This record gives sequence, C-alpha cells and structure tokens, in this order.
Amino acid sequence: MTGIDSFIKKLETLDCGGLYGKDFFLTWEKSAAELDAVFTVAGALRCLRENNIAARLFRGGLGVSVFRDNSTRTRFSFAGACNLLGLAVQDLDEGKAQIAHGETVRETANMVSFMAEVIGIRDDMYIGKGNAYMREVSRALEEGWREGILEQRPMVVNLQCDIDHPTQTMADMAHIISHFGGVEKLRGKKIAMTWAYSPSYGKPLSVPQGIIGLLTRFGMEVVLAHPEGYEVMSGVERIALENAAGSGGSFSRVPSMAAAFAGADIVYPKSWAPYGAMEKRTSLYERGDTEGIRALEKELLAQNGTHRDWECTEDMMKTTRNGEALYLHCLPADISGLSCKEGEVAAPVFDRWRASLYKQASYKPYIIAAMILLGKFKNPPEILARLAKRKKSRRWS
Amino acid sequence: MTGIDSFIKKLETLDCGGLYGKDFFLTWEKSAAELDAVFTVAGALRCLRENNIAARLFRGGLGVSVFRDNSTRTRFSFAGACNLLGLAVQDLDEGKAQIAHGETVRETANMVSFMAEVIGIRDDMYIGKGNAYMREVSRALEEGWREGILEQRPMVVNLQCDIDHPTQTMADMAHIISHFGGVEKLRGKKIAMTWAYSPSYGKPLSVPQGIIGLLTRFGMEVVLAHPEGYEVMSGVERIALENAAGSGGSFSRVPSMAAAFAGADIVYPKSWAPYGAMEKRTSLYERGDTEGIRALEKELLAQNGTHRDWECTEDMMKTTRNGEALYLHCLPADISGLSCKEGEVAAPVFDRWRASLYKQASYKPYIIAAMILLGKFKNPPEILARLAKRKKSRRWS
Amino acid sequence: MTGIDSFIKKLETLDCGGLYGKDFFLTWEKSAAELDAVFTVAGALRCLRENNIAARLFRGGLGVSVFRDNSTRTRFSFAGACNLLGLAVQDLDEGKAQIAHGETVRETANMVSFMAEVIGIRDDMYIGKGNAYMREVSRALEEGWREGILEQRPMVVNLQCDIDHPTQTMADMAHIISHFGGVEKLRGKKIAMTWAYSPSYGKPLSVPQGIIGLLTRFGMEVVLAHPEGYEVMSGVERIALENAAGSGGSFSRVPSMAAAFAGADIVYPKSWAPYGAMEKRTSLYERGDTEGIRALEKELLAQNGTHRDWECTEDMMKTTRNGEALYLHCLPADISGLSCKEGEVAAPVFDRWRASLYKQASYKPYIIAAMILLGKFKNPPEILARLAKRKKSRRWS
Repeated sequence: MTGIDSFIKKLETLDCGGLYGKDFFLTWEKSAAELDAVFTVAGALRCLRENNIAARLFRGGLGVSVFRDNSTRTRFSFAGACNLLGLAVQDLDEGKAQIAHGETVRETANMVSFMAEVIGIRDDMYIGKGNAYMREVSRALEEGWREGILEQRPMVVNLQCDIDHPTQTMADMAHIISHFGGVEKLRGKKIAMTWAYSPSYGKPLSVPQGIIGLLTRFGMEVVLAHPEGYEVMSGVERIALENAAGSGGSFSRVPSMAAAFAGADIVYPKSWAPYGAMEKRTSLYERGDTEGIRALEKELLAQNGTHRDWECTEDMMKTTRNGEALYLHCLPADISGLSCKEGEVAAPVFDRWRASLYKQASYKPYIIAAMILLGKFKNPPEILARLAKRKKSRRWS
Repeated sequence: MTGIDSFIKKLETLDCGGLYGKDFFLTWEKSAAELDAVFTVAGALRCLRENNIAARLFRGGLGVSVFRDNSTRTRFSFAGACNLLGLAVQDLDEGKAQIAHGETVRETANMVSFMAEVIGIRDDMYIGKGNAYMREVSRALEEGWREGILEQRPMVVNLQCDIDHPTQTMADMAHIISHFGGVEKLRGKKIAMTWAYSPSYGKPLSVPQGIIGLLTRFGMEVVLAHPEGYEVMSGVERIALENAAGSGGSFSRVPSMAAAFAGADIVYPKSWAPYGAMEKRTSLYERGDTEGIRALEKELLAQNGTHRDWECTEDMMKTTRNGEALYLHCLPADISGLSCKEGEVAAPVFDRWRASLYKQASYKPYIIAAMILLGKFKNPPEILARLAKRKKSRRWS
Repeated sequence: MTGIDSFIKKLETLDCGGLYGKDFFLTWEKSAAELDAVFTVAGALRCLRENNIAARLFRGGLGVSVFRDNSTRTRFSFAGACNLLGLAVQDLDEGKAQIAHGETVRETANMVSFMAEVIGIRDDMYIGKGNAYMREVSRALEEGWREGILEQRPMVVNLQCDIDHPTQTMADMAHIISHFGGVEKLRGKKIAMTWAYSPSYGKPLSVPQGIIGLLTRFGMEVVLAHPEGYEVMSGVERIALENAAGSGGSFSRVPSMAAAFAGADIVYPKSWAPYGAMEKRTSLYERGDTEGIRALEKELLAQNGTHRDWECTEDMMKTTRNGEALYLHCLPADISGLSCKEGEVAAPVFDRWRASLYKQASYKPYIIAAMILLGKFKNPPEILARLAKRKKSRRWS
C-alpha cells in the first residue's frame, strides 16, 4: 500500500500534538499544521477502508451524539465515524427546544460519559448559545476527569454550532483539495461564498461563517456576498481578515452575487438568516414569546422575498472562471422548480453538479473520524502504520 | 460439526450467484435455487449460532433501517441479523406519514450510505408506493456507487412493501419445511391462505400476496379465500398461477374459509384490507383529505363487520386434514375474547399453537441474515466453511 | 495486575452460583455472598477497564432496553454495561403510558429475544405493576426457552420498578464501601434514609425502599424518616426489620429529618410520593380518569407543600457525626435556589458534595455489567482470570 505510506509520511512532518486531548470547536483555534493533519488522517482512513483494512482502534466505548436540531446527514456521518473506529453510538435525546444550562449541563455531561470516548454535539439554533453550550459541556468533562469521576476524558466534537460548522467546512475543503489536485494549487483561487434566496427562514449562519473562517487560511481570494441586512458575525469577519493577511490571500465583501461570481473558481451560494434577526429570535425563545416568534418569521420571509434574484442560475455560472467554477453546497439545497418554486439554485445547475455534491458530502465521516483519532491518540502516524501493517480485513471477501 | 457440513454441501449444489450484488425485493424475482440458497444459509447460520460460533463477517459497517410504519418484530429481526454479521444498526427516521420522492430519495439514499452495507426498508402503507420507493432507493445507490460516491454498493432488503413481504414469507416457509421434515415433502400439500375477520382496518396485503407468490413454487395446492371485495393484486394472482403451472402445483380461489380449510395441511387465516380501498386511501392521503380518510375508515370497518364469521375456530380446524393442519400467522393476531371481542382466531386455537407460532417467527432474523450474506459475499459456501473452521466462539463459556 | 488478582481471589471464596441463569429483580432475593459477588465483579471490571483491558465476553448479541419511563442516566449505564461486555443495545419503545399485559407481554418478550442475551427493564410508574411486569416477561422467556423457541435464555435486569431499584442501590452501596474503606467498616454506622421536600410530585418509592431493603444487610443502623402520610410499602419495611435482625444491625422509623440526621454517618435525603397516593394514581390511570389524575396531582403538591422544612441544609448536615456524614442522592436532585425555589437540598451542600455524587453514579454501569456477567457465565472467577491473562487492550495506545 504505497497510498497509505504517503499519508503517514506526510503526517510525520506535521506538528499536530496540539490536537491530542483537546476538543474540536472552531477551525480558527487550530494551527495550519493541525488542520492539515485532519485532512491527512481523513485521507489515510479513506485509503485504509478502500483497501478493506479495519480501523477499529477501540474495542468498545461509546460515542455520544447530542442533536439539538434535526439532522440526517450529520447524524449518519457521526455514526459512520464512530463505527469505523469501533465505538457504539448512544444518542442523548434532550428534546430540541430547551436551552439547558448550569447544573443540568454539568451533571448530564458527566452522567453520559462514564463509558464515552467522544461526544458529538449539534446545537445551532440559538445565537450565542450553541458554542457556549459545547464549552460548558467541555468544562464539565474536564472537571469530571480531573476529579477522577471519569476514567477517560471524552472529546467534544462540534457537529455545528451558532458560530462554526467545522466538520462540514473541513469536508468541503477536502473536496476542494481533491478537485484541484492539492492544497498548494489553491493559492490565488477565488471562492465566492454568497447568500442565495430561499423560501424558508432561520437557516444557520455557521456554514458561511465557517467557510470564510477556514478558506482564508490557504492563500485564497475569499469573497463574501449578501444583501444588506444579512451580515454574518462581525467577529468571524475579523478572523477572516486576519487569516487572509497571514496566508497571503484576501477577504472582501461585495454587495451582489454577480460581483462574487465574476471569475470565481469556486462558488458556494447558500441561504442564511440575518444575524440580528437570529439574535432577536433567541431572546424571543428565551421569553417564550410565541406571538413575537410568529411575527418575526413572517417578517423574515418577506425580507427574503425581496431577494429572489439571488439565485445560482446557469447564466450566473457562465460568469465564473471559464464558466467552470466548482459549485458547492452543504445540502439539502432549495432547488428552483424542484424542491420549491424559487430557490437557491436552478435545477440544471444542481443536476449537473449532483455527483460532485454527493462526493463533497462523502468526506464528512472521514473528517469526523480523523478529528477523533487525532484528539484521542498520542502518536497518530504510528497508529496508522500499525493499522496498515496489521491488515485486518474490514469485511471478509 | 456434521450439521454445518451438510448445509455447505447443499449450498455448493445451488446456483445462487444471481443473488450476489443484488437487492432482495420480491421472491418471484428469484430462482428456485436462489430461494433454496436463502433457506440453506439461514439454516447454516442458525446451526453456527447453536454451536456458539460467531458469524461476524463485517468488522464494522452500518445496517440502515428505514421503518415507514410501526414495527417491533421486524425491527428486532433486522437488528439481530445485522448484529449477527457484525454490522451496527442506524435508524433513519423520516417520519411515518410522508411519501418522499425524487430528489429527496436520491439524496438521502446516498447521504446515509457512505458507511452502509445494507439498507432494510419497511414501507407498506400505500398501494403502489412502497415497492416503488425501494426501487428508487436502489437506483440511487447503484448510480452513487457507479459514480464513485459510495465505496461499496449497499444492498436493499425489502422488510415489507405493498406487494410482498419476503422476509416474513421466507421465514414462514422455513418453518413449514421444518414442520414437514423437508421441502420435498410439500408436494401436493394443501395450504389455505384465507382472509379472517378483524375489528381493525387497513392491514397490508403483503402477507397474503407474498404467500401465494411464494408457496406456489413448491408443487403445493395453494388456495386463496376471502369475502367478495377483498381481492388481492391481480398481478400477484397471475404470478401465483404461473408459479403453480411451473412447479406442478395449483393455485385457486374459493369463496369461503370453509372451502379453503377443507382437508388443508396448512392454514394461514389473516385479515387484510381490500386492494381497491387501499388504492383509494393512498390517493386520499396524497390529497391530504382527512375527512375522506375518516369516512373510508368507517366504511371499511362496517364492511369488515359483515364478515365476522370468517374466524379460525376449533370447529374450523377440525375440518382440516385429520384435524391437524399447521396453523400459521405472522403475528400479532387478533384473538377473539383476548385481544378483541371477535377476531381472526379463537383463543383455544391460538393457545394450542402459540409455541409453534413463536418458532415460526424465530426464523426471520436468520432469513434476513442469509439474504445479506448471499447479497454481499461472492462465495457463500467458502465463507461458511471458513467460519466453521475458524470456530471463533460467539460468547465465552 | 495485583489489583485484579485480589478481586478474583475474593470471588473464589463467594458462593455465587445461585446468580447463574437467574434474573435480578430484588436485592433481598439474593444471598449476602451473591451481593458481595456483584460488588466484587463490578470492582474487577472497573479494574480491568482502568488497566485498558477489554472485557468483551460476547462477540455479538443484543441487550434489549425497555424504558417505560424517561431515563438518561440509567439508559446510559445500561448501554455502557452492554457495550463493555460486547452486546449491542436495541431499544424497545412501547410508548410510556400503556400498561401491557397477558398475551402481548408474552409475545413481545419472545419476539425481541431471538438474539438477546439480556433485557433491562425500567417500569416504576405504577404501584403493583412494574415488578409484576418484569416477572411476567421473565416467565415468558423461561417458557420460550424451555420450548426451544429461544436458543438462549435472556436474563432480565430490573432497572427500577415500583418496589426496588437494585442497580441504583447497589451502586450507592459500592460508593459507600469505597468511601468507608471496606464493607467490614460499615458495622454500626448510622444511615438516615429520609424524605425531603420537592415541588414536583409522584416520584417513585423504589429508592427509599431499595435502600432500607439493602443497607440493613450490613449490620448498619438504618433509620427511615418521613412526614406522616409518606409511608413506604409495609412489606419492604418488614424485610428491612428481618434483614437488620439477621445482620446484627437495626431498622427504625423516626418522625423527623432532625432525628434521622442526628449523629448519622450517611444521609440520603430524597423526595418520594405517598404509597397510598401512588396506588390511587395507578387505578386512576387504569380507568383513564384524567380529571381524577389532575385533582390528585394538585392535592399531592399541596400535601408536599406543608413539609417545606424537610430540606437538607448546612445546619442539618452539622448535626451529623462530626458534621461529616456522607451525603448521597440518586440524582437529579431538586436543589433549592438552583433547580427550584425550595427543594430537597441547599445549594452549598449539593455543591460541596457534587464530585462525590457523580462518583456515586459512576458505579452503576459496572454494577449492571457485573449482574449480567454473573447471570450469564458459569464460572466468573475463571472468566475474569482469562480476561486478565489475555490482556486484549480496550483501546489502542
């Protein structure tokens, strides 16, 4: 297996010890080498699987999933990642709407963790709450472990919060790297992260924020476009600017999809909710103001409705570099004339890119498994080498 | 283990290569040798388990279950089968009532399958929809696999659709074979698949259809009985006729339970809904016509109520061959005076046959596991021989 | 590993064969040696895990969980225990409110058990029903196994019923033993099992009953305190008296928390519902008397409200032996000023004991796993010795 060897060799050159024993919350808290290590281990795990080699590093242990919002693809990605490494998934179903806090979080975190190696959390509903909740869980686990309550320190993996969606954007990035034939090919490439119209409302901001927070680290020209009033968190924009400065790329905001698409190598047109509105919604929920929530929903849908021209059409695609930009979406997309009357993307564009979009999604289980492996094992290159050498078949043949 | 050897020897004589890489939708799409292979592998797996030999052919991998209708026994059978082979079950909960289609099916099928080896689907609620849905999933998986999105092609197993219920009827058949001491003993035996009264409504037609579609292949005299208006799909009746012609048996319809029971070797009295009414219900659901659904329900219960005499009583049982016909039911049964006032079967009949009925159900996990093994592994006799030779214990002792 | 050796040596001295092939319903149905064996095996399993040694005695097989009441900690404890031993958990979700019986119980018990090694049941909602239900399941399994329907006899583990909560109280006891440095140190120690105020109603009686039924077996001075009208089952009090007589300890009832706490070595202040009210509620539910249930709820809350002074405060804690009694709770607790305005325990007391409380809970997965191991394997000391000798790592390192 020459394939696996090159992954291991690459990994040996990367200083990724900082991932060990830590949670994975935001990509911008990790070094470039650490992110590279995630891509590399994900590639290695995929390579092992393709060569029918099992990667069960755990003989037992639980992977706890906490989905505080509906999820199919992330749920299956997490389940697949845990299973790949030998963990059994146990779901913690707390009910979707409640915002837990304090004592309850601390206690629950410990109670579900006696046999847990990893806890994957999706909590993206409320601005200012999701990521904070994960860190509260993390602190509780840290304390429980230091006090000898937990025999191991479960790792927390952010499966989407109000700020970032690292398992999604890292999978997106793995797809981009594969598409362009290497991370070194990305320097100077233009990516358009742009708002698009949707007849639904309240979609999380974690993808656009995660994308500008991650893709600015590879020397790319990252352009963010959205109608007025659809601003993302200003803190993340600052991070994007800093990243761009550090990586020799750029980050800028333009007022139209057209400006963003012009000459772009990659486009990521996707709907999201205005940050301010999401803040407002969060406090309405906290006050239990059903009337106010309904009024806000109506208002937001009306606001969306004034931007129906923000659609990724074939004509728009033609304006990208050679008319051949890579089209990305985290799925499911609102497809005009298919899943809705008017939506984020024209049916022919989506149709042409379907296989590529599915491929994009296929990286997620490996990205999650790589995060777990790097967070839980001290010497990842050696672990991979031992797996490759052992050659235990993943399934009989 | 002489037991396992005889299964392997038998399997070697059967041309079952056609099962490899394929889904399992309808028994009449499979050859006689292929069906025989399923019975044989199911027997072999049971024999291995009884001898405390593990059959985990997978070291990881997901078995995805999709239950679009309530289920306990099929859910546990599928879970047991997956577990026996080393797969972890992950449930896809889409909500029961919705009829998904097109883009959504294609996308979801791929998104849940990155790590999946098998997808078990129960979708029996709507005439013309259930089996069609499974085939749509199958096409999406085939495409996803050809396009390199999926690294393996997950197999689809029909856990009950609007047309057939192959894992049930194959388990029934395994029980029949065991009861009569061999498939060759069944030639000329009379089986009465007959409607029975139930105070509930809307029960699927997949069991009676599956039974006449399967049991006509073994040279048996298959008799279908039901009140006027409770016809099953005519297409399946045609298949039953063809099967009977091919196997040297017969298929006929009689207008009363009495005529069906007379001299029967096996009886299968069970309620089902009129085919036409189920078609009507499907379109009512599609239109979201709650009023119409309620009216139809009332009408169907009234219609059922005129056939309360279709009950499997001790007196009826006495009319079978020597009064000793094998009594079958897929469970749960509507037992008169026990689970309802008047129902499909008299309590003393049920009580006398309880152990046999439970035994009948016990074949299902092995049948499902056999379908998976034959669909996923190229050389089943060799696989079984290796398992038997390895002799890894299923549990310590 | 000298640690594991001492557990094995101890286990060899204990006559625990009576646990093999049996269910675990009530602690007082087990001998002192058998209970000691559970603590010993739990300790051994914890020791193995801490030494990174896998304890997967099963290569496949299901652990069925039946939760007829909400549960997080017990659910995760059962899942952790099953996973530790190599079983996959499959949940049987019957809906919470229904009281199943007769035919349905017998049938379901068999249908979910074809591949099951253990069935964990929580059914504590209805007085006179929960434990009875478990025994009904057990009889069905016994019959199914004798009749050859089930190839193995799944063991039933009581995860909380209307009478006892053995996995909780055994975990509590393991914590007590660890805290005091050995079971022999407990002789003469005073434990106060006392009612405490809660603004909620209808909490099960299984913990106070389980505690007086278990702790009276170790020569301790067990004191039960509660307001008038909050009596526990008289049958369990009788058992506590008998136990105390047999073990050289004592059991008595006092009318105030103050009397119970005075000089106590251990305190367990916890709310529960009056036994009589729970009986009444059960029959209201059986009759489907929603109006009556609502009225009873109101009445019970008002009754509770007259005992707000039954709170475990710092001042109360000072009255215990040297002001240093071990504070126990099965969690979650109603903490005054934190999870409610007035509750079972003052926030500073809870806060001071939090780590200890979490540690107390951490024994439960091991207790459950020990019950399973002793119920399913004939020669536990040999099994443990083989695990220790094999030294298969639980996770790579």
